[in-house]
Amino acid sequence: MGEQGYGAVGVIGLGSMGLGMAQSLKRAGFETIGCDVSAAALERFAAEGGGTTQAAAELGPQCEAIVSVVINAAQVEAILFGADGLAAAMRPGAIFLACSTVPPTFAKQTADRLAERGVLYLDAPISGGQVKAAEGALTIMASGSEAAFAKAGPVLDAMAETVYRLGDEAGQGSSVKMINQLLAGVHIAAASEAMAFGIKVGIDPETLYEVICKSAGSSWMFQNRVPRILTGDYHRPQSTVNIFTKDLGIVLDTARQHSFPSPLAATAHQLFTMAASAGMGGDDDSSVARVYERLSEIELPGDH
Amino acid sequence: MGEQGYGAVGVIGLGSMGLGMAQSLKRAGFETIGCDVSAAALERFAAEGGGTTQAAAELGPQCEAIVSVVINAAQVEAILFGADGLAAAMRPGAIFLACSTVPPTFAKQTADRLAERGVLYLDAPISGGQVKAAEGALTIMASGSEAAFAKAGPVLDAMAETVYRLGDEAGQGSSVKMINQLLAGVHIAAASEAMAFGIKVGIDPETLYEVICKSAGSSWMFQNRVPRILTGDYHRPQSTVNIFTKDLGIVLDTARQHSFPSPLAATAHQLFTMAASAGMGGDDDSSVARVYERLSEIELPGDH
Repeated sequence: MGEQGYGAVGVIGLGSMGLGMAQSLKRAGFETIGCDVSAAALERFAAEGGGTTQAAAELGPQCEAIVSVVINAAQVEAILFGADGLAAAMRPGAIFLACSTVPPTFAKQTADRLAERGVLYLDAPISGGQVKAAEGALTIMASGSEAAFAKAGPVLDAMAETVYRLGDEAGQGSSVKMINQLLAGVHIAAASEAMAFGIKVGIDPETLYEVICKSAGSSWMFQNRVPRILTGDYHRPQSTVNIFTKDLGIVLDTARQHSFPSPLAATAHQLFTMAASAGMGGDDDSSVARVYERLSEIELPGDH
Repeated sequence: MGEQGYGAVGVIGLGSMGLGMAQSLKRAGFETIGCDVSAAALERFAAEGGGTTQAAAELGPQCEAIVSVVINAAQVEAILFGADGLAAAMRPGAIFLACSTVPPTFAKQTADRLAERGVLYLDAPISGGQVKAAEGALTIMASGSEAAFAKAGPVLDAMAETVYRLGDEAGQGSSVKMINQLLAGVHIAAASEAMAFGIKVGIDPETLYEVICKSAGSSWMFQNRVPRILTGDYHRPQSTVNIFTKDLGIVLDTARQHSFPSPLAATAHQLFTMAASAGMGGDDDSSVARVYERLSEIELPGDH
């Protein structure tokens, strides 16, 4: 028995975002079942009284809504349509909320395939980080049919502070998220280039941060990520380099499909790729600053 | 007789910024003398009761402080040290406030050359735009000697809301301004790439602007410049494409002096250069979006 007679809700992928979202759903009164390949992740949620399973397909018969917070499109594809796939096990009329950042075309195609089985799909990429996930205060960039929004409503309310309703087709939410990631990725890389260059020409980095935050060169990412550069805090990632090689990869793939030039996204993607290539893929995404350090005679702040 | 017994203040370059700064100085009680090669610019200031001259050297014997708001380092060089140069005409103990964005090394060298004549130099690049210039509410990123700050104090107070004191040598203020311009230029170009790509994939641009402004992809420049893209307002520039080909040029020249890599600044510089090459050099700097339009089958909003 869930909130207001709503059926059980499954959450696939109990990483830092998914766990917080599952906690928010549970707190809102939903019977919540977490699914992850990691036994440790499941134990964490079980300890809080949550339901658990390692097999996504098992969620199918039980759940009215399934929230997917896995890494990428390949994982969504495997979970839904791979061996022992979830798609075949879901109830007609149930909904799949796809919260990963995926290519817009993948979102559209997946929605169409689930529609053939009578399963609803909400294109629902998320933004806000793990703290807001745990608070049920995410931003969700959503698109989908009237029926999908109606079915997803109570679930969205439990997870999000802001739900943008961006269109009546899957893919539109993912398109807006993609553009956000283009900007976010370029801005993190630009913050790294700027701080590293400032240090190279002899500016005190704390002063530079303070002045830029109040000037026309500021960005949300500059304000959010540069403090990690100032303390050398690269090994407790809130978001990793690998996320941006992936998300800027989606930007570049989609741009290529449209024959659309994206020189800044391409340059930023190369910088994140350099960081990943240097072994920093699992580190905080502000590690792009360490690429500049490794290539020059500067010393970044902190002990990293 | 100026404010509190301070001598006359000269302002060289009565463009949109310089005129506002001259007005702010006059309002604060300084005897203010404007200098410009344009007779029309001088007439505008004379009509408000300001003093005027077309010859910068004439300011020398009269002024205790001279504020330079010309376009670039080459103009500063010509005014100070060219034929009938101002440097030789300035009084010992007077101050030259250099407000243009110039290479940090140029600021240092110019300060040293003026010091040989007993003239003070304040490295004082400005930020804030023409409205804040007219309100006396600029941000100034300043560096210089104790004596330079002491002499400049009342003049800075009349022009600025915020004065960052960034070091005791000329060049440090220009270095911080240079980093700010690196970020500002990359962010304008990224905003253009993002909006154009969003339109290409079918997102409503007004909606995209609204969502991004509240998301992690936002920047000061995105919020400030995209409204011009949404209205197609490129021909009443508040800041031009040419400003950023120049300022990112300073970034690239300085980076090259230090053998420092700056791939994002270089890419953004190419995008502004494309805009200038396409005849948009005197247009609003958000015209980078029109580069993407010209290279693709999108149509930007507005009638431009």
